[in-house]
Amino acid sequence: MSDFSAWASAHQSRFEETLKRLLPQPDIMPQRLHAAMRYSVLDGGKRVRPLLAFAAGELAGAPLERVEIAAAAVEIIHAYSLVHDDMPCMDDDVLRRGKPTCHVEYDEATALLVGDALQSLAFQLLSEHLLNEDAATQLQMVRLLAVASGSRGMGGGQAIDLDSVGKQLTLPELEQMHIHKTGALIRCAILLGAHCGHLTQAQFDQLDRYGKCIGLAFQVVDDILDSEADTATLGKTAGKDADNDKPTYVTLLGVSAAKKMAAELHGQAIEALTDLGAPAQRLRELADFIVMRKF
Amino acid sequence: MSDFSAWASAHQSRFEETLKRLLPQPDIMPQRLHAAMRYSVLDGGKRVRPLLAFAAGELAGAPLERVEIAAAAVEIIHAYSLVHDDMPCMDDDVLRRGKPTCHVEYDEATALLVGDALQSLAFQLLSEHLLNEDAATQLQMVRLLAVASGSRGMGGGQAIDLDSVGKQLTLPELEQMHIHKTGALIRCAILLGAHCGHLTQAQFDQLDRYGKCIGLAFQVVDDILDSEADTATLGKTAGKDADNDKPTYVTLLGVSAAKKMAAELHGQAIEALTDLGAPAQRLRELADFIVMRKF
Repeated sequence: MSDFSAWASAHQSRFEETLKRLLPQPDIMPQRLHAAMRYSVLDGGKRVRPLLAFAAGELAGAPLERVEIAAAAVEIIHAYSLVHDDMPCMDDDVLRRGKPTCHVEYDEATALLVGDALQSLAFQLLSEHLLNEDAATQLQMVRLLAVASGSRGMGGGQAIDLDSVGKQLTLPELEQMHIHKTGALIRCAILLGAHCGHLTQAQFDQLDRYGKCIGLAFQVVDDILDSEADTATLGKTAGKDADNDKPTYVTLLGVSAAKKMAAELHGQAIEALTDLGAPAQRLRELADFIVMRKF
Repeated sequence: MSDFSAWASAHQSRFEETLKRLLPQPDIMPQRLHAAMRYSVLDGGKRVRPLLAFAAGELAGAPLERVEIAAAAVEIIHAYSLVHDDMPCMDDDVLRRGKPTCHVEYDEATALLVGDALQSLAFQLLSEHLLNEDAATQLQMVRLLAVASGSRGMGGGQAIDLDSVGKQLTLPELEQMHIHKTGALIRCAILLGAHCGHLTQAQFDQLDRYGKCIGLAFQVVDDILDSEADTATLGKTAGKDADNDKPTYVTLLGVSAAKKMAAELHGQAIEALTDLGAPAQRLRELADFIVMRKF
């Protein structure tokens, strides 16, 4: 196992315990809602956003226990968006991370409330733990997450996505959609990790350039995997986007040009890290991981 | 027109303009989402929570322009909860504030995203405007809103509500449900208004006792109105809760005992304000307004 794999899996295990501790316990009222919140967040996913936050936090010399809170807030926002995305009125999907989706395992009304309560929880975490000695910086972190989640970020991307069904988008339009839908939260994860420590403004700008490239690369690779892999490997329904007549990088460019685009974005992400030197090594490895992953 | 009516309607008009300014403009992408967000928040409701925030802010000597931001955050959380509550998988209601509900005017997927994006916007507002010279106090305000909205507050109350359909609740159980579902956010509105200024801890405690009583009184009166008024007067479907076999104070106690309970809670709310003297006059008037309203 490479050094990176060991680093990633150690962080993933530790982070799972952190999430278990931060989510409302299932014996607290209302129990069913709390159980459904835990079901929707725990045991799931590659935790790409948290890993990016950890790597950015290390670069910024941030204490891991603070970065974990910030990473949990971002991952909980991500989890809520999946719960709502899977609902019948949106993507109507039954499988997520190899398990029945929340509205299938529980019911639609519960899934709606789970998503809502997870979003509140994310902001509670960012405001009730000490994440930076400077409270004004921490308020700024709250703002970053709110903007990345809202109608000019992830939520807006989903609205553009809804409107795009059955339409022929141009490449810039598709890019706009994904910069909002996936990119904003990935970028936010990196910045929040770094805000738990200290960087110069120039270093923040370099990190942010990396975040923009890797956020888009993540989505291009997602589209490629969705078109090539099978449902068992993905743990979610494969080929769904193309079946739903949603534009993807693959339907727009073809697989081979989409792969070329992912490689170019990877190169730009690595280039953005040049001045950050050796301490940015984990971010480079994460860029490799994001572009070369098979699920 | 009484002095109170003039005060309330001046604040309501001014607040409407503030909301128009704070909500995303409808010409900004994604336009349809932004239009639906504005549709769901503007021209609606009595703005009881904002009025409570304004009265608490006056008591605490807070600048109105700060209290308006805090009030907007609370009202936007309230508006999102109504949008999600009205959806087919929850209360399945078609009329709200005399207009078609969001999912009827737009569509279900849009209503889901509207609620989600409004919640993010509330936290964005609380974090991007200066509301208190002390950033740590402002972070505390973010935490108050997150807790009041989440699974131990409003969201939790809705989950208890869901579970209660068709069940015979005891009075303490019904009270628990409403303390979460309606009470938490009303209490939060008052505290956030006060946090834009300065009060002693003892004064905060008195305000909070007032908030708890008036929050519950609000719900008891809502149940009475729901059982007595007609749809045209309410601007929402009347008799809905009883029809849905949901326990209410009226179904549990009967109208006359429910009215007695509202009067008692009103008395307790007024009593909590005793030591706050004349500066708490608006809060007393609001208690009267909440208990004596006809819609």
